[in-house]
This record gives sequence, C-alpha cells and structure tokens, in this order.
Amino acid sequence: MRIAVLGTGVVGRTLARGLARVGHHVVIGTRDPESTLAAAETDQHGSVAFAAWLRENSGIGLATFADAAEAAELVVFASAGARAMDVLRAAGARNLEGKVLLDVSNPLDFTTGYPPTLFVKDTDSLAEQIQRAVPRARVVKALNTVSSYVMADPTAIDGGDHTVFVSSDDGDAAEAVTSLLHELGWKDVLTLGGLSTARGPEMYVGLWLRMLAAIGKPEFNVRVVR
Amino acid sequence: MRIAVLGTGVVGRTLARGLARVGHHVVIGTRDPESTLAAAETDQHGSVAFAAWLRENSGIGLATFADAAEAAELVVFASAGARAMDVLRAAGARNLEGKVLLDVSNPLDFTTGYPPTLFVKDTDSLAEQIQRAVPRARVVKALNTVSSYVMADPTAIDGGDHTVFVSSDDGDAAEAVTSLLHELGWKDVLTLGGLSTARGPEMYVGLWLRMLAAIGKPEFNVRVVR
Repeated sequence: MRIAVLGTGVVGRTLARGLARVGHHVVIGTRDPESTLAAAETDQHGSVAFAAWLRENSGIGLATFADAAEAAELVVFASAGARAMDVLRAAGARNLEGKVLLDVSNPLDFTTGYPPTLFVKDTDSLAEQIQRAVPRARVVKALNTVSSYVMADPTAIDGGDHTVFVSSDDGDAAEAVTSLLHELGWKDVLTLGGLSTARGPEMYVGLWLRMLAAIGKPEFNVRVVR
Repeated sequence: MRIAVLGTGVVGRTLARGLARVGHHVVIGTRDPESTLAAAETDQHGSVAFAAWLRENSGIGLATFADAAEAAELVVFASAGARAMDVLRAAGARNLEGKVLLDVSNPLDFTTGYPPTLFVKDTDSLAEQIQRAVPRARVVKALNTVSSYVMADPTAIDGGDHTVFVSSDDGDAAEAVTSLLHELGWKDVLTLGGLSTARGPEMYVGLWLRMLAAIGKPEFNVRVVR
C-alpha cells in the first residue's frame, strides 16, 4: 500500500521504517523537503540529521505534506499534536478526502513544564478535532498509547503480548488500520468504538507519562486482561 | 488491623468484605447508621438493603464516619468522589490525623450524562484535593483503576496477573497500603511516586470507561508489560 507519514521526528521516522519493513511503499511528508534535508541538527532525542537517516532507509521517500498525502492510499498523522491543524492544512483536505487518516498523536501541552498536560481532553479529543478539520477523511485513532519503538515493533516487548486500542466512526477504516497493526506485529487490537472513544486512550497518556517516570524506559505497554 | 471503610455503596461493601476476609477488623462508616440500617432500597446496582447485607457479613461493624475513623488504624475512602469533602468533614480531620487514608475513589461527574467526565484532572487530582483537605492524614491513592470486585479479589481474573498503581507523598504509608494489597491477592503493585502522580491513574478512568463499554463487563484490568 502507498502510505504517507506526516512527520519527520522520531515517531514519523520509526513508524515509516516499520511500515516499510512489512512491505509498504512509504513517503514521509514534511513542510519543505529542502529544509528538512538541509537540517543538520540532532534533536533532543539524539536523532541523526534527517538526510543521513534517509540515506540509511533508502526505500523511503520524502515529499511535501501535500504531495505525500495526494499520492497515498493511507495517511498517518505522526507530528506533534499541537501542530495537527497546521499540518492538515498543509496536506490539504482534498488530498485526504476518502482516505484513512491514522492519528497516532497526543494533545501534549509542554508550555507549563513536565510532565505535559493535555490541551484537549475528557469532553473532546484531538482525534475528533482532526476529524472536524477534515470531515471527508476517515480518521482512526490508534498507537498513541505507546512509544514509537513499540508502535512499529510490538514484538520487542513480551513477544507482543499486549494491547493497542482503535477508535473510529468508520468501521471499514478501523478494519484497515487493524490489518495494518497485525502486519506490524500487534496481536491484541481492542476496538473501543466511535471516534469519541479516543478520549479514553488520549487521557490514558496521563498515566503513561507517570509510568514512564516510574519504570525509567519507554519500552512498556499494557495488556488488557479480560 | 482496625480498618474503617467510609462508604456503604457497592465499593465500600465489597472492599469491607475483602478486607475482613483476610483477617482485618472492619467497620463501615456512614453519615447516620440508623438511616443506613432503615433504608430498604435496592440501588441501581441491584444491591440488597444494607441491613440485610450486614446480617450476611456479621463480622463487619457499622458506625458514624467519625466513630469509624476514630477507632481505626487505617481509613479507606470508598464513597463517590463528588462526596469526598463532605465525608471527610463528617469523619473529622482529628480522627484522620497521622493515619493512612487510602483513597480508592474517582472524580466522576455524571451531570452531563454517560460516560461521566472528571471534575478534576490533569493539573490536579482528587487525591491531592483530599490531601489538602486533611493535611495531617497520610493519603495514598490506589485501586481506583478497577471495579470493586477486582479491588477486593484480583485473583478472580487471570489468577491476579495484572497491575495496581500506588501514589503517595508518604513512603511508609505507600508501603502499608502495598502490604494490604498483597494480602488481598495483588501480585503486581507499581509505585508511581508522589501523590501528584495520582493524576495518571485518575485520568486512566477515561479509558477504563470506554473499555467497560467495549468489553461489556467490569471484570477486567491491565497488566503493565515492561
């Protein structure tokens, strides 16, 4: 499948590599490919410069948000939650029309320090905000409850015996994402229901952040025992 | 140990019975024992009248919030979160002084329908509000992430192979609660840190409520895979 991953950070890179690993044709979307390729900086996660990363992952493409989205059958929103509206505007509603839009982001607000708070929660969610911004896209929330390493390779912890959540108002889109999750190695996909159920996994991030501090590493997840 | 359980609803009853089962002397606290014993109603959970329940659980006592708290070494807050300040006022700050106060409640707001929202979250928590209301009690948050049946008997699902979270500013109080949790059958107790970390397990309830709807029964929990 032709997949666009919107976001050049650690989440976008890790997911892009994971999706390419299982056989998809992946293009990463960015605001300005030239600047992205020229950037030499190592970010706070110790990432290598994007151009060097891209050379190591030669099967993956780079394009503008709009070009990546237009050419894709499925689009992954993998930028910072706070940038969602900007990135979607750049991608273009027309390029997302009728397509599955997998939102893996979180509405993190770092303006008051660490741990971050959520800029939308409880009575609304970022997934719903995204759906309202691009009403003709078929938004699915998933994977926001784990670190990018776990997103792309769940088998890295406990053989993959843990849970990922799916929320969408579009049953076919939820099924398409569920298939993609199985391809990545996810064994337990728990479909919560309509997109408003994404409020649950987004609020869970409040617990995830405290577990991260207590456990001391991002390679963990929960298994729903039922 | 002499334990007071503040609350006569399904959570208070179930926890009281579980704590009595493992050998503790349990007294349930209520606003007015006479009214509680006179009440004939079956609540929305299909519970029997309290007097009938108490006859079936003859080892458990009933007293005013204040008398129950005064006589106890450890106090469990097991009423509705919205009633916390009222119940603590009735119990009396002096009767809670120096004692472990285990808060198993959630800040649920049902005023806008179902699923409920949280009346405090993200930048504060009900556990912290309780600690501020009774600064000389040693507040510990735990067990709010599971239904009462699971609280009192974790071995009922998957042999107890799942996780409970503990938050407190008082290390000794957290340890006392951890021991109590082990007595009830909890195997995996994850200490998150100071009481502000209770914001995490409280926000998780947003996910718990959506899982309840998707799974269709309250007998579930999460195991933290790390």
